[in-house]
Amino acid sequence: MKINYDRIHRAQELMKQEGMIGIMIMNHDDYRYFFGDTRSQPRAIIPAGGEPVFISFRSEEPELKAALKSENVKVFSHVGEQMSDVKKTFQEIFNGPPPGMQHPEQGKAKVGMQMWFHTPAFLVDLFRTINKQVELVSSDPVMDALRMVKEPDEIEALRKSQSIAAKGMETIRELIKSGITGHELATEAMYVMMKNGAEGTSTPIHINSGIRSCWVHGKVDHNKIEQGDLVVVDLTPEYKGYCANLARTFVVGEPTEQQEKLYQTYLQMKEGVRKILKPGIRSLDLDKASREVCEENGFGEYHLNGISHGIGLRFEETPAATIIPPHRIIRLKENMTVTIGHTILAIPGLYGVRFEDVYRITPLGGEILYDYPIEFVIG
Amino acid sequence: MKINYDRIHRAQELMKQEGMIGIMIMNHDDYRYFFGDTRSQPRAIIPAGGEPVFISFRSEEPELKAALKSENVKVFSHVGEQMSDVKKTFQEIFNGPPPGMQHPEQGKAKVGMQMWFHTPAFLVDLFRTINKQVELVSSDPVMDALRMVKEPDEIEALRKSQSIAAKGMETIRELIKSGITGHELATEAMYVMMKNGAEGTSTPIHINSGIRSCWVHGKVDHNKIEQGDLVVVDLTPEYKGYCANLARTFVVGEPTEQQEKLYQTYLQMKEGVRKILKPGIRSLDLDKASREVCEENGFGEYHLNGISHGIGLRFEETPAATIIPPHRIIRLKENMTVTIGHTILAIPGLYGVRFEDVYRITPLGGEILYDYPIEFVIG
Repeated sequence: MKINYDRIHRAQELMKQEGMIGIMIMNHDDYRYFFGDTRSQPRAIIPAGGEPVFISFRSEEPELKAALKSENVKVFSHVGEQMSDVKKTFQEIFNGPPPGMQHPEQGKAKVGMQMWFHTPAFLVDLFRTINKQVELVSSDPVMDALRMVKEPDEIEALRKSQSIAAKGMETIRELIKSGITGHELATEAMYVMMKNGAEGTSTPIHINSGIRSCWVHGKVDHNKIEQGDLVVVDLTPEYKGYCANLARTFVVGEPTEQQEKLYQTYLQMKEGVRKILKPGIRSLDLDKASREVCEENGFGEYHLNGISHGIGLRFEETPAATIIPPHRIIRLKENMTVTIGHTILAIPGLYGVRFEDVYRITPLGGEILYDYPIEFVIG
Repeated sequence: MKINYDRIHRAQELMKQEGMIGIMIMNHDDYRYFFGDTRSQPRAIIPAGGEPVFISFRSEEPELKAALKSENVKVFSHVGEQMSDVKKTFQEIFNGPPPGMQHPEQGKAKVGMQMWFHTPAFLVDLFRTINKQVELVSSDPVMDALRMVKEPDEIEALRKSQSIAAKGMETIRELIKSGITGHELATEAMYVMMKNGAEGTSTPIHINSGIRSCWVHGKVDHNKIEQGDLVVVDLTPEYKGYCANLARTFVVGEPTEQQEKLYQTYLQMKEGVRKILKPGIRSLDLDKASREVCEENGFGEYHLNGISHGIGLRFEETPAATIIPPHRIIRLKENMTVTIGHTILAIPGLYGVRFEDVYRITPLGGEILYDYPIEFVIG
C-alpha cells in the first residue's frame, strides 16, 4: 500500500469546490485508487484538508499502520463501532473545518460517498442515522472528475487485464463444441485467467447459449451447448483492480442467414461507433450511430441503447448511461477508456450476438487496448 | 426455474401479519429461494396476495415467460424504466389491496426489501424517490422467518457445497509450502472447486499468511509464503446458490509454543461452542462460551465476538450478530444452519488462527455438515 498524495490533494481541491467536508470511502475501487491496494473492508475518510483517516479492525491495526506508514488508523471491532468512529471523525472535521473551507452558512455540511452497485444500502442507512449532522451526497462529482481520464499506468493495467481476458477467451474458443456445458467452459477459462494473473472476475462469467443468448447480462449453467446454438461469452477478469471486458459470440456449426446477418450488423455497429469515439462525443451520439446501423440492416426494432460504458477500477464506471440515464450527455475526453459492444443485439425468443472490447479515446477515434480476433463460426 | 408456491404462500401470510403490501426482490438469494434459479438482474415483486410479478429486459421476455410458465412478466429496458414498472405495480396493489389486507388507516403502505451487503444503495434511493406512496422497510421479518430454519433439501445443498470446499482445501493442503504464493494456491483451489460443481465463491478466497493472518477477513495476494508463517485459508464455494464456509489454518514448518497454544485454544473454543449449539441458545451465549475458553488459556484480551453466523443462500445470514448487533439475542432453532469459527484469534502484529465449519442445530448440539479433518502442521 502507498498513499497517493497527488490524487488526494486533487480530490481535496474538488471537495472544496463541491462544498464537501470529506469523502467516506467504503468501496474497493476508490480505496485502491488512493492507496494502491485494497482490503476486505476498505474503509477510510478523506477530509477536504489534512491526512486521510483509516478505519480498521483491532486485530489488523499494527499491520495496517506498518503497511501505510501512517498512524491515522482508527480501530473498531464491529460495524456499529465503525460507524461511531466515522461520526466522531466527521464531528471533529465539522468543529474545525479544514483550511480554505467555511462552515456552511445554512443547511448541513456535505459528505460524499460512492453510491453504486457495491455500496450496501444498509450501511448507507446506518451512516445517515448515526451522522445526522451531515448530509450524505454522491461523491461522483469529485471521483468522476479524478478517475474518468486515465493515467498512463492505468491504461497499461487495463491493457494487461484485457490480454488476460483474451487468454480465457482463447481457451473457450478451443474447447467450445456441441455437448459441452457453460460451466465446463467457465471452469477452464477461469483457471487460465487466474494462472495469468487475474485476481478474479468483476462480474460472474457469462456463457449464454441458445435462447439464453438473448440475455442482456448472463451467467453460467450446466445446460449442454447444442449444434446451431449461438453462444455469447463475456469475460471480466481483474488485474490490480482494473477490469477487463471482452465479449465474443460463437456459432456452433454453420450459421443461418439471419445469424450471419446479425453478426455482420454488430461488426458494422462497432466500427461505426469506434470511428466517432473522439473527444467531445456523448453516449447519446454513440447509441444513435449504433441505432442507425441496426436500422439500415433491418434490425431497428431490436436495437437497445447502451452500446458503451466507461471502464477502469470499476466494471461499469462514468460515463455509464447503461445505469445512470443522465450520463448520456457527458462528453468524452482523450484518454478516457470505454467499451464498445455492451448491449445485446437479439431477436427475442431466438438468439442474440455481442462483441465487446475496450478502447482509449483519441482524436482519431477509439484505439483498441488489446486486439483479440473476432471469429464467429466454430467447429 | 420453478415458482415455489408453498414458500410464496407462507411469505404472503407473513407479509399480512407485518402489514406489508408486498416485497420487492432485488437479490439473488431471495430470488433463488422462491423461483429455484437466478438471473443476472433478479427483479420480482411478491404482492401480499396473488401471483408474483417478474421484471425483465425486453430481449429476455419470451425466454423468461417460457422458463416460468407465467405471463406476469413486466418488461423494461433500463434501470429508470424498471423503477417505473415497479411504481405502477405498487400503485395497482395500493389501489386494490390483496384479500385479507386493508388500506393502512394512516401513514403509508409498507413494502419490504432485503437490505444487506448486496442491495445497492443507489437503487434503494431510486426506489424511495420514485415510489413515494409507499414506505420501504426491511423484508427481514418475513424472509428470516421463512429462511432461517432449513428444509431437508437445503441442508443437503449446504452439505454438498461444504464438501466442495473440502476438495479445495485438500488441494491447498497438498500444495502449501514455503515459496508458493496465495494467488497460486487460490488458482488451483478455485479450479478444483469449479471442477466439482462450484458456481464460484460467495466471498473472495482468503489466503492470509504471516502478519496478515491477523486479518478478520482476507484476500489473496502475490506474496510468497515463508517458513514459520501461519496461513489462514477460507473457502466459500457456492452450490445451487448455497454457500460453504470452510476455514483452516496451517503452519509451514514447526509451530512455536505460542502458535501451538493458539491452535489448541481455538479447537477448545470450537468444541465448547459446538456442545451448546442447541435450540434456544443465542449468539450472545456462544460468544460468552468462546470468551471463557480464551480467558482460561490466557488469550482473553485477544478475544473478538462473532464466533458464529447463520449460513444458507446468503453467506452471512440471520442470525448474523457479526453484522447486525441486535441478532445477538435471536434464539436458535432446530435445523438452523450456522458456522462455528468465524472470528480470528490473533495476537495483533504477529499472527492469528481460525478453523470454521458449518453445523446444523440439533437438541444434542451442533452436527457438523461435512467433517473435513483439522491438520495444523504442514511440511
